[in-house]
Amino acid sequence: MTKKYQRYVHLLQKVADLEAVQALLGWDQEVNMPEAGAASRARQLATVAGLSHELSTSEELGDLLDALHARGDQLGTAERRNVELSRREYLRQRRYNRDFVERHSRLCSEAYEKWLQGRTTNDSTAYLEVLDRMVQLKREEAELLGYTDHPYDALLDLFEPETTVAELDPLFAEVRKKLVGFVARIREQAPIDQAFMQQKFATDVQWDFSLLLLRGMGYDFAAGRQDLSPHPFTTTFGPGDIRVTTRAEENNFANMCWSSIHEGGHALYEQGLPAKAYGLPLGKAASLGIHESQSRLWENNVGRSKRFWEYWYLRLQEHFPRQLARISLHQFYRAINRIEPSLIRTESDELHYHFHILIRYEIEKQLIAGSLEVAQLPEVWADRYREYLGLEVPDARRGILQDIHWAYGSFRYFPTYSLGSFYAAQFFHRAQQELPQLERNLAAGSTGTLLVWLREKIHRHGQHYSASDLCQRITGEKLNFQYFMSYAEKKYDEIYFKSL
Amino acid sequence: MTKKYQRYVHLLQKVADLEAVQALLGWDQEVNMPEAGAASRARQLATVAGLSHELSTSEELGDLLDALHARGDQLGTAERRNVELSRREYLRQRRYNRDFVERHSRLCSEAYEKWLQGRTTNDSTAYLEVLDRMVQLKREEAELLGYTDHPYDALLDLFEPETTVAELDPLFAEVRKKLVGFVARIREQAPIDQAFMQQKFATDVQWDFSLLLLRGMGYDFAAGRQDLSPHPFTTTFGPGDIRVTTRAEENNFANMCWSSIHEGGHALYEQGLPAKAYGLPLGKAASLGIHESQSRLWENNVGRSKRFWEYWYLRLQEHFPRQLARISLHQFYRAINRIEPSLIRTESDELHYHFHILIRYEIEKQLIAGSLEVAQLPEVWADRYREYLGLEVPDARRGILQDIHWAYGSFRYFPTYSLGSFYAAQFFHRAQQELPQLERNLAAGSTGTLLVWLREKIHRHGQHYSASDLCQRITGEKLNFQYFMSYAEKKYDEIYFKSL
Repeated sequence: MTKKYQRYVHLLQKVADLEAVQALLGWDQEVNMPEAGAASRARQLATVAGLSHELSTSEELGDLLDALHARGDQLGTAERRNVELSRREYLRQRRYNRDFVERHSRLCSEAYEKWLQGRTTNDSTAYLEVLDRMVQLKREEAELLGYTDHPYDALLDLFEPETTVAELDPLFAEVRKKLVGFVARIREQAPIDQAFMQQKFATDVQWDFSLLLLRGMGYDFAAGRQDLSPHPFTTTFGPGDIRVTTRAEENNFANMCWSSIHEGGHALYEQGLPAKAYGLPLGKAASLGIHESQSRLWENNVGRSKRFWEYWYLRLQEHFPRQLARISLHQFYRAINRIEPSLIRTESDELHYHFHILIRYEIEKQLIAGSLEVAQLPEVWADRYREYLGLEVPDARRGILQDIHWAYGSFRYFPTYSLGSFYAAQFFHRAQQELPQLERNLAAGSTGTLLVWLREKIHRHGQHYSASDLCQRITGEKLNFQYFMSYAEKKYDEIYFKSL
Repeated sequence: MTKKYQRYVHLLQKVADLEAVQALLGWDQEVNMPEAGAASRARQLATVAGLSHELSTSEELGDLLDALHARGDQLGTAERRNVELSRREYLRQRRYNRDFVERHSRLCSEAYEKWLQGRTTNDSTAYLEVLDRMVQLKREEAELLGYTDHPYDALLDLFEPETTVAELDPLFAEVRKKLVGFVARIREQAPIDQAFMQQKFATDVQWDFSLLLLRGMGYDFAAGRQDLSPHPFTTTFGPGDIRVTTRAEENNFANMCWSSIHEGGHALYEQGLPAKAYGLPLGKAASLGIHESQSRLWENNVGRSKRFWEYWYLRLQEHFPRQLARISLHQFYRAINRIEPSLIRTESDELHYHFHILIRYEIEKQLIAGSLEVAQLPEVWADRYREYLGLEVPDARRGILQDIHWAYGSFRYFPTYSLGSFYAAQFFHRAQQELPQLERNLAAGSTGTLLVWLREKIHRHGQHYSASDLCQRITGEKLNFQYFMSYAEKKYDEIYFKSL
């Protein structure tokens, strides 16, 4: 049995090696690759993806998993959990036939190209045409994978295991019910002045400050690095090499600062996963929602809190004396928490954000179910933005062409962003209860208490618990939107109503 | 037949994809990787190397190559050449059994570690112990691969096909006979003053200048980039992505300048290989010797010529007015061509360089033949440095620990460096004859004429001709050391004897 288990570990770690290689190919493409390298890079990615798929669906692995599954009683708890999750993933992977994988890969390349092209020309016609075929393919994928209630569940299960439309629908209904009214009340208030945020902030000084922030959060630069890329992301090449990227805009200080904190949150999770479980489920993040909970907890609950900036604002002023000397911490704090609807999801404040997700969730669910056709998409998109954000969508670039997800064939990804925020609020609330010194520490620039807590409660477990069980273990209850709502009410009441 | 050939191309290109992936893993390791990433990186490299070896020794590929070989009359010249070279390589690869490959890989990792350790402690004891086992393994490899006359031939054939000890021995005998005396005469002359070269040259300005140089040479930055690494190298991730690295030393201007030119020469060769033959022998460099001829032609025949600096020295002075304003082109030209023995191969002038190679060639040949044991190595090394360079080796770091090659299991690599210089002199002599405007163009900062000639004569052919046949086609004769000797005599007579 031990021998079989070791062989299983060996095979999974080979797959993990190839996944790390794909991650490196992707990272390099975003960060370093010269433009003429694109064609070769696409070949290399396809070749490695093919080999990886082959390894992860091999007969040998299937036989091993069956044998280990059948004699699960001879395994320890951790080993059994690894085997069960690997087997579930194996059986899912085996449902994909080669023909589907190849058609999917080709369609993604085509859709990505049309998406890029659409962004350049600000015309979505060609993109919509290929997106229509993508939706057909995704419907096919849902049938291939199987589902009980809603075809969207099949896809959702990939990123957020065990989460279904039956759970998401009431959750987003609650978001609609509670958040819409609260945000509407805020919008009636006088807007907060944040003109000073749009001064020129030299990007190399922003860069130095972002490195300080990452160090301050506890990100280990001996096991990672930060680089620039058009779209910030975090990527893992193994337990000792977890990298983040960020982006710089001279006229928008907020961009680099909070994207570094956000990616830093993701990276701290990855750096806290157990290295000894490399390649195994227990060495991987519990779910995308939990991953996002880590980035958003740092970005918002910590990184947009007054406590945090009580320490950091002085350092920021030292970096930008000319721009910030006359701006008080109070002004700064209010400015970085200004609530204002925007057309672009990634530029949204932390409340309107969930309307962006809500819109996408409703749309993609209906697309997969067949109750909405791609041709109706621009109109529905515009209607919803009018309804939830009170904004007119002026063009495709600021409409459906703003996100890359669907072009990559990622239908099911968006809800995990909101789940992340909601988990974050619930976790942070718990941390505040369990760590009476937390606020004081944050105000003194020390985030170590929090990081140790996150490591202990979340990071070190990998996929030992499902997202839902993890939440139950940590907070004593399932995901509960009310924690986010209370966090939002407390914070924005003070910012918008009490400080008037 | 066409179908079989296409399938063969398909398989070779898969192998090429994996080779590119290995190159990226290696490049990133040198340029970007945080230190804690080393263990994962070693795993990834081993996994991809294993898959690559599996693909390149598959039964399917063997059967295809046999079938294509048997009906070679149905193939065009280029196709036939591809098949013949691939088959030769395939049969060689198949001689390696899995056990040998794994032992080799493990020993390389161990030797590399001991080498690094030895460099830190300046103690070669542990390195010599593992090197002894490495030499045993290399003797085993030579037997595995087979040879006619000398076991070293088996290894040499990997890098410089069809070149044997029977050819190298007389060549290096000639080097000894002609170069030793000439260099001795130079050493009797008053040393050239180059103190100004050791001023402080800001590394970011050096960097800007090196980019200018690369652009000036015709290096295409849309299909490549330059980065910093401890040991400069050139690497290829596909026809549109060929990267160089360089290194910066504030107190040694020469370091970055000529390493950028050197790597630029390698990269121009790679950028000139036919993209349509990606993954096939005709898309690859003819040999390591020919590759090195390109880097050295640019580094020395062009990059240390007076003509070249007639254009570039003004630009250099603009970059470093404080350091160079009072230094004439004449002084500069003499300083960058100062002949002086040094203990370190990579810091050597272009004449003493070949003594460094001669010493290594003699030693590794005898190690493989068994007529020299590793235990004798430090003593023999010291003796030869005394004999050829008139220098005492003060410690291991400046002795046998200076090169990484043997620790990587590369025995046979060194001679290709000298071959490169000798080919370079012969090619450049031919270019001067065929391009009457060459000197004038160089003096005007235009290297395009030369690049077009190199593309036409060398680059575009890939491995269509062997190194030896290529030399014959271009210059009308086989490799002839006399071209290098004449180049050296003409240049250094003028520098050391006529200008007195």
